[in-house]
Amino acid sequence: MSSSQQDRPNAQTHAASAAGPLAGIRVIDLSHVYNGPYATFLMAMAGADVIKVEPPGGEHLRSRGDLGGADLPFAMLNSNKRCVTLNLKDAAGRALLLEMVARADVVVENFAPGVTDRLGIGPAALQAINPRLIYGSSSGYGKSGPYRDYPAMDLVVQAMAGIIGTTGHADQPPVKAGAAVCDFSAGVHLYGAVVTALFERERTGVGRVVEVSMQDAIYASLASNLGMLHARGSAAPARTGNRHGGLGVAPYNAFQARDGYVVINAPGDRHFRAILEVIGRPELADDQRFATRGARVANMAAVDALVESWTRTQTRAEAAAKLLALAVPCAPVRELSEVILDRNMHARGSLQWVDHPGLGRVVLPHSPLVFEGAGRLPLQPSDRLGASNKAVLGEWLGHSDAELEEWARDGVI
Amino acid sequence: MSSSQQDRPNAQTHAASAAGPLAGIRVIDLSHVYNGPYATFLMAMAGADVIKVEPPGGEHLRSRGDLGGADLPFAMLNSNKRCVTLNLKDAAGRALLLEMVARADVVVENFAPGVTDRLGIGPAALQAINPRLIYGSSSGYGKSGPYRDYPAMDLVVQAMAGIIGTTGHADQPPVKAGAAVCDFSAGVHLYGAVVTALFERERTGVGRVVEVSMQDAIYASLASNLGMLHARGSAAPARTGNRHGGLGVAPYNAFQARDGYVVINAPGDRHFRAILEVIGRPELADDQRFATRGARVANMAAVDALVESWTRTQTRAEAAAKLLALAVPCAPVRELSEVILDRNMHARGSLQWVDHPGLGRVVLPHSPLVFEGAGRLPLQPSDRLGASNKAVLGEWLGHSDAELEEWARDGVI
Repeated sequence: MSSSQQDRPNAQTHAASAAGPLAGIRVIDLSHVYNGPYATFLMAMAGADVIKVEPPGGEHLRSRGDLGGADLPFAMLNSNKRCVTLNLKDAAGRALLLEMVARADVVVENFAPGVTDRLGIGPAALQAINPRLIYGSSSGYGKSGPYRDYPAMDLVVQAMAGIIGTTGHADQPPVKAGAAVCDFSAGVHLYGAVVTALFERERTGVGRVVEVSMQDAIYASLASNLGMLHARGSAAPARTGNRHGGLGVAPYNAFQARDGYVVINAPGDRHFRAILEVIGRPELADDQRFATRGARVANMAAVDALVESWTRTQTRAEAAAKLLALAVPCAPVRELSEVILDRNMHARGSLQWVDHPGLGRVVLPHSPLVFEGAGRLPLQPSDRLGASNKAVLGEWLGHSDAELEEWARDGVI
Repeated sequence: MSSSQQDRPNAQTHAASAAGPLAGIRVIDLSHVYNGPYATFLMAMAGADVIKVEPPGGEHLRSRGDLGGADLPFAMLNSNKRCVTLNLKDAAGRALLLEMVARADVVVENFAPGVTDRLGIGPAALQAINPRLIYGSSSGYGKSGPYRDYPAMDLVVQAMAGIIGTTGHADQPPVKAGAAVCDFSAGVHLYGAVVTALFERERTGVGRVVEVSMQDAIYASLASNLGMLHARGSAAPARTGNRHGGLGVAPYNAFQARDGYVVINAPGDRHFRAILEVIGRPELADDQRFATRGARVANMAAVDALVESWTRTQTRAEAAAKLLALAVPCAPVRELSEVILDRNMHARGSLQWVDHPGLGRVVLPHSPLVFEGAGRLPLQPSDRLGASNKAVLGEWLGHSDAELEEWARDGVI
């Protein structure tokens, strides 16, 4: 019952690269909003055929409309996928899903744990149909463990995992990371888990169930902060503002410039000497307060005051240009309106201007995974809801127009 | 010249699963500090044989000592790797590396772009020896593009990529995310790229060069913020504090409790009605200010004030327990001393108490990638510097004790 060669037109062994390293892999994507869709976005941009299955009203991110600006995020995460509708609460909808699963390589979902089992489309049911299937799930807290049934979204996991507690200034309340770092970290970990299972299947011939939790996926990123807690115990401050998470580097901070802020992270003695050159204070290289990394850390406030006395006289761009010329790690604190125009990412093709049928001309990301020699697959704007129903349910699965019309009328698709 | 069966004792096709899905894969890890080592940590915990190559003085994170608390981060990221020393600036050291590469599947490095080419150990040189080799790199801005040679570390990329600009309160200066989110996002993306190439190699028989940049790897996590910029243009606030990055959900905030803060993210009408039950104000379900998601977003300040008037009377634990009982997404804002004891992660085995020879009894993470049915590989504490020199350079490569002694004397290892 597993996919036949005829079902996977791109699966010829040696031609796979030209269409991306995952060419020939068929993914049934039941996921919604951010973390599952990011995993399948990475798959699609690596050449997999991703069939995005949405309820007839659209997944949450689409059905929300643009309240809060959901249209662009939907477009960002759903390029190069084929969108179909299926009502998984309807027996006929589930039967169509099983037809697809029999011919697929991967299923991805990020429902709350247990939901797919209750619908009869959990991993055991699907692998009974297709033993080669990789079944990948992500959730807030994972499928095992006492928090399994807690509802979780990015903000909640940021609180639980210590991201909020470690963000902000020591003398001010904690604040979340502005980006949805827990959602997206889970998404890319899920990508890694699924592809690992695809690799394993090439050797064993059988599928695997893999899973990722948002809580697990963000933990390691707190390494510096956890290191400071280990080293200093209860004396460790909960938050360090823009300073190093372990307070182990100086200068390491955001400094006021004439038109905003500039960050500098200068761990080495040579970095600090370069800064002294740039700011016109080379004589301080011999000052015992600044001579070694340890000394600079011990005199962090004096180091920061010295650096900021200079940055205040510069624009962000001037400060960054002068410091980068001497290889000091440095950057302007940018606004998003600057970020979307980043000339490095546009030059690399990781950001692209795209004429999107629904949104007009917008900047969309390509995959961060670069496969040298393969070229980037052309970026295809996200499908309208159900745009691929006919191609997938009709042409691929072999159902008639009359059946599709009946299912549409009955709310099955 | 590629690895022979005898060189990979775990490579028997069908036994691979018992030792992890990457059993039989040999990784030469030249990386340091956070992002490369996190990629190879994920490989090691999935069963790959990761040989960590450090300069004779140790990689930066080890050689730094515990200034700023670097010991625990080193232990977190280097479990289950075999540590050897090699001076890559010495011809004899590079010759030993090439002996390893000839028998390996993967090389991972996160030097600045161009460094390995200048040393004669870049991807072209290594794939000339071993055409099946996967060569994976990560860097701040990538190997192509105008920023290629800018030095970059987590703080710098957070500034450049818009993470800092979007973090903090609208009426206060920007602040970085407390965790090293750019470093770790690049690390897990690099894992994904390398494993994708391993999958592809099973079908094509040849290796590939893959790369990831920190800047590319964090972009998508700003989806909500970018969506608001798209929808509102210059009227979009740069930062939204603890509110939704798109200001598209209410209540969505951190609320003062008696002993700290609690976060609530309640996107649905049913969530909000549940909150009204919990706080004893069910009559407000009919209030037009709160009846729909759109109304609550339009009356965000009133929604937040209502919720906080209740949370102020509760401890974090009380508020979270009452709201979770009605399935409202909610969590205490935790300190790291609470995070390391998380009972869910310990129950899942994603955090484990380990007796570490150098650090004593500490909490270390296992991989966020869960392969069901495979069990977790036992967590092996990080090696001392050069601890596997004899096993790798002597037993695996076949060099004599006399050679090893000579190399140690000459600063080669």
